[in-house]
Amino acid sequence: MTDHLVLFMPSGKRGRFEKGTTVLDAARKLGVYVESVCGGRATCGRCQIEVQEGHFAKHKISSSKESISGVGPNEARYLEKRSLPAGRRLSCAATIEGDLVVDVPQDAVVNAQVVRKDADDRQIARRPAVGLCYVEVEEPDMHKPLGDLDRVKAALQKDWGYERLEADYHLLPQAQKILREGQWAVTAAVHQDEDDETARIIALWPGLKNEAYGIACDIGSTTIAMHLVSLLSGRVAASAGTSNPQIRFGEDLMSRVSYVMMNPEGRDAMTKAVRLEISKLVQQVVDEAGCAREDVLDAVFVANPIMHHLFLGIDPTELGGAPFALAVSGAVKLRADDLRLKLNPGARTYLLPCIAGHVGADAAAVTLSEGPHRQDEMMLIVDVGTNAEIVLGNRSRVVAASSPTGPAFEGAEISGGQRAAPGAIERVRIDRDTLEPRYRVIGADIWSDEPGFLEAIGPTGVTGICGSGIIEVIAEMYLSGIISEDGVIDGALAAKSRRIVGDGRTFSYVLVESEPRLTITQNDVRAIQLAKSALYAGTKLLMEKQGAETVDSIRFAGAFGSFIDPTYAMVLGLIPDCELEKVSAVGNAAGTGARMALLNRDHRREIEETVRRIEKIETALEPKFQEHFVYAMALPNKVDPFPKLAAQIQLPPRKVLGGDSGDPSRPRRRSREERDARRQRG
Amino acid sequence: MTDHLVLFMPSGKRGRFEKGTTVLDAARKLGVYVESVCGGRATCGRCQIEVQEGHFAKHKISSSKESISGVGPNEARYLEKRSLPAGRRLSCAATIEGDLVVDVPQDAVVNAQVVRKDADDRQIARRPAVGLCYVEVEEPDMHKPLGDLDRVKAALQKDWGYERLEADYHLLPQAQKILREGQWAVTAAVHQDEDDETARIIALWPGLKNEAYGIACDIGSTTIAMHLVSLLSGRVAASAGTSNPQIRFGEDLMSRVSYVMMNPEGRDAMTKAVRLEISKLVQQVVDEAGCAREDVLDAVFVANPIMHHLFLGIDPTELGGAPFALAVSGAVKLRADDLRLKLNPGARTYLLPCIAGHVGADAAAVTLSEGPHRQDEMMLIVDVGTNAEIVLGNRSRVVAASSPTGPAFEGAEISGGQRAAPGAIERVRIDRDTLEPRYRVIGADIWSDEPGFLEAIGPTGVTGICGSGIIEVIAEMYLSGIISEDGVIDGALAAKSRRIVGDGRTFSYVLVESEPRLTITQNDVRAIQLAKSALYAGTKLLMEKQGAETVDSIRFAGAFGSFIDPTYAMVLGLIPDCELEKVSAVGNAAGTGARMALLNRDHRREIEETVRRIEKIETALEPKFQEHFVYAMALPNKVDPFPKLAAQIQLPPRKVLGGDSGDPSRPRRRSREERDARRQRG
Repeated sequence: MTDHLVLFMPSGKRGRFEKGTTVLDAARKLGVYVESVCGGRATCGRCQIEVQEGHFAKHKISSSKESISGVGPNEARYLEKRSLPAGRRLSCAATIEGDLVVDVPQDAVVNAQVVRKDADDRQIARRPAVGLCYVEVEEPDMHKPLGDLDRVKAALQKDWGYERLEADYHLLPQAQKILREGQWAVTAAVHQDEDDETARIIALWPGLKNEAYGIACDIGSTTIAMHLVSLLSGRVAASAGTSNPQIRFGEDLMSRVSYVMMNPEGRDAMTKAVRLEISKLVQQVVDEAGCAREDVLDAVFVANPIMHHLFLGIDPTELGGAPFALAVSGAVKLRADDLRLKLNPGARTYLLPCIAGHVGADAAAVTLSEGPHRQDEMMLIVDVGTNAEIVLGNRSRVVAASSPTGPAFEGAEISGGQRAAPGAIERVRIDRDTLEPRYRVIGADIWSDEPGFLEAIGPTGVTGICGSGIIEVIAEMYLSGIISEDGVIDGALAAKSRRIVGDGRTFSYVLVESEPRLTITQNDVRAIQLAKSALYAGTKLLMEKQGAETVDSIRFAGAFGSFIDPTYAMVLGLIPDCELEKVSAVGNAAGTGARMALLNRDHRREIEETVRRIEKIETALEPKFQEHFVYAMALPNKVDPFPKLAAQIQLPPRKVLGGDSGDPSRPRRRSREERDARRQRG
Repeated sequence: MTDHLVLFMPSGKRGRFEKGTTVLDAARKLGVYVESVCGGRATCGRCQIEVQEGHFAKHKISSSKESISGVGPNEARYLEKRSLPAGRRLSCAATIEGDLVVDVPQDAVVNAQVVRKDADDRQIARRPAVGLCYVEVEEPDMHKPLGDLDRVKAALQKDWGYERLEADYHLLPQAQKILREGQWAVTAAVHQDEDDETARIIALWPGLKNEAYGIACDIGSTTIAMHLVSLLSGRVAASAGTSNPQIRFGEDLMSRVSYVMMNPEGRDAMTKAVRLEISKLVQQVVDEAGCAREDVLDAVFVANPIMHHLFLGIDPTELGGAPFALAVSGAVKLRADDLRLKLNPGARTYLLPCIAGHVGADAAAVTLSEGPHRQDEMMLIVDVGTNAEIVLGNRSRVVAASSPTGPAFEGAEISGGQRAAPGAIERVRIDRDTLEPRYRVIGADIWSDEPGFLEAIGPTGVTGICGSGIIEVIAEMYLSGIISEDGVIDGALAAKSRRIVGDGRTFSYVLVESEPRLTITQNDVRAIQLAKSALYAGTKLLMEKQGAETVDSIRFAGAFGSFIDPTYAMVLGLIPDCELEKVSAVGNAAGTGARMALLNRDHRREIEETVRRIEKIETALEPKFQEHFVYAMALPNKVDPFPKLAAQIQLPPRKVLGGDSGDPSRPRRRSREERDARRQRG
């Protein structure tokens, strides 16, 4: 027999195989994941591959159309019923006839499927915990009185290599009917999360079942986002989002914990509310994809610790105070039925591990998505919410912390602040000479100084300023000299511009003069300073733990991160100095991490192992946090240089003014410097 | 350091250990199972051992009181609160101080326990699937933010050596409260059935929990029997039995299958009925033992295939006809909650494997109890019911079959037959000369020819004859020459005894002359002949498969087997020739097998492996069954000799008479022999 060299892309795995070996067999032997439901019978169409033609010098291999067998009878029968994309072949039917380069497309879909564009078009290598396996089962035989389900197991062992199999209870009363309906041919859904655990038959269908779905769900304090994902092609079939109904029990996390502490039925009510909402989302996505709840066989959830506990029905009271003890921190594996989720009766659920009492499974999912532990650069990930979750690290070490930023970044505690919604100012520029502002509001495409602005914003007018707007206006105020390094609005400028106005003992900046008037007060500036100091001080602690003077890249996770301009974030000193092009928003990275865990169980082991290794820093217990916090009150920072930022943007000269800057946690004492500054103004 | 030789009895395991090693540690290292809940803290009192004193020549070891340490402070503290039986020590506290022979009692109970005598006082070596493990858990620490349950797992891993642990869902919401109530000391119930499977925490209690129970339940067609067993001492704490409520849907198995086939809701109704009855039995046994349903952590069930399926909620219709396909034949492992059984919420259930469509988990349990596969002799086990289940084998090979004996052995289809109940004749002797009978009835201790018999049996009088009585009367009729080898009642004897009376074309024997008169008719003899022929023919097929001319021992399982006299059973040829002292009744061996599987998971593996190896013979498909059946119609058998029986009892000389003997499944043809005999009589 002649041996031929076969190279699989994109994995790069290669090996020599006898002429006539099917491409699928070759892939299996090399450990290349190629989907197959029918087990090599050329009926499911899932095992598509593409032959790459030409000479691949790098790999020292030449591949051509002649390197693979022509379409044989089985593949022809498939093509009579369905089509294959141009250039595609069924790897279970096509055999190796010469040296061969094969591409395994990650999007192998069968032609009837509706494919939707995913929010994040990342291709995730697949190795799901739930697989579909078609088998032809021996008929009952009085001489070998093995039970019907036992013969299903035997077929799965023989054809699919499962060594130990158990069947879920709900299948016991159904198995005989399904087997006879399928005339001894059935498709089993087999769940095996860990390599060495017993595989379980969780669903059975008569004949060939050629589609299975999973859901990836991020349960945020404010919103719940869900993707319905094909476990066979990896494509997102539908997505949906909704408000977290727990908001009616408390706007932020701590108020929900308080609600539980004060209302004996509160925990149960919140658990039911979030599960009901998730159930509605499931209906929404399966309706949109044209499938049924019963087609959903696996579900991955990510959430912050309090949402995680409430979803699981755990009282979150312990998370409300030190030592912030999680009931369970490791990955949680359950049956969907345990959580009363109506999916397929055998569906499984997986919750990513929590990192710490304030750094949840959502942060773990973001980590999995961005992968600081998979690369060498020092990567900083910040997920800004009421608590900022911060992860810093690289291949050799990852550290994490949370920092109590408060809700200022989301527009709360700001005099004119509001949520990101039409009418909210989201972009601001201030003329360095005249101090006149121009701005853009959500829902309008033009700036406030462009013609037709009033028409564009419509009858609502300007309703307030959202998180990204407040970041920009304060950064612009600093860059234009309106506020000092210490964050004090320079009252002396009132003489130069009518935008600077007195406001009791401090000054304000009038961003919108028309009614309703919108001003940025000294308190607004302070609120942002406090929030960004907390975030920066947490980051700084992690950098110290890593012995890192600088970070190589920064990822903003979450919705807020998608809207803020990295430049302004850095001007304010929310984040440390970094090349601006290395700062990026990664959107719903938690959702992406959830999808990764759904589609590939190796990613589950990866994040479990990573979370075990992550060192958690409790900012409240670190003596240096206070010091970093005080330095971080200055813009961008009292002591840390921002050379990379300075190379791209002109930072104002240092200008110290009085005001109630400094450590807000201590009783207010005016420094001599401040008193001097006040006297100057006075 | 000095090494001392330590020998554990009854296992015989031995090893050398350093002076000062605790006896418990030594046992663990040798793989000797010694119970311990508290993990060596001398608080649970479960790890009792006894030092054997003297010189043990066979083992070349001398052991004395000085070979073990005196009572130290921990053991003294235990003894202040509780006592130990004389000579007992706590092996976790006592250390090795010299060469030592140690006995590990299997009945180590702590002194507060009520201990009941078990029906079967067999000592079962324990290695249950559920164990109690007391642990002291680290308190939460912000620097190491592992969840509360994760720290429980860590403690279980460290102290008890579990490598991989998961927690049941229902514990997640409770764990934090339990840990705080126990001040970070808890007892976990850990379920691990197979060595290489993930262990699961199924229950948690604050502090030390020092008792746990399991139930062993035999679901028969007629009766359900249950034992409540301590998982820690192995002792039966309570037993109860009741009628199977499914009797109202059909007296025998096939009528229940018909009921399901004809009533769409029938299956569900029967499943609910049997589960409800089991639930009542659980309440009965826990009440009797003074514990609660929540203390029951494991449950083993055995049943014939139809009961097995109905209990699991599986439609038994397939078992009603060839090929008698079981839905599931392997051992079934479930959560008790799957079956809606109200035990501890984390309780597990285990159903022994079924051998074939007519040879159920009850037969597997009998096999486990009697252990033909554990010894070298050729052992025959017969469990007589409407279907007789027959197992034959030894260490090298085991074969099994069922044979349709019908209900004659239970008194049905017999003219004066009744169930075993007060008033039923259970023993019969016939005078060889006068042909006068004497008998005993259930409920009375004296024979019918003894003075005071009428007073002893009371007002009910003689109500009928039960299974063991019918066996004896027919055997005695044969031994006294009333019936021939072919089972024909000899009408010629009517001249000699008024007990022989004409009855149409055949004759009857009058057992009771007073009203109500009780006669044994020719049809009664035929019914027993048919039943015993079926049983013998099945046995014979198995002997042929084994190449065995004789069997070495015979075990009668089931209630019926406990009452029949082996001699008479052999005289009738129910069973093959065998030394009479090697024939024994083993009572509820199925219940014993269930207890073994409950108390020792190695027995689960043993019976699973044995059932996989057992060769099943389908009597209906064996061409020689008919031939064996016809020969077996004769008493004791047409062709097989009974030399061992003949050595102990005088069998009558062969005496062939006419009558409708022969193969009852064929159209009645009279043999020349029979016709000749009739002519003789005529």
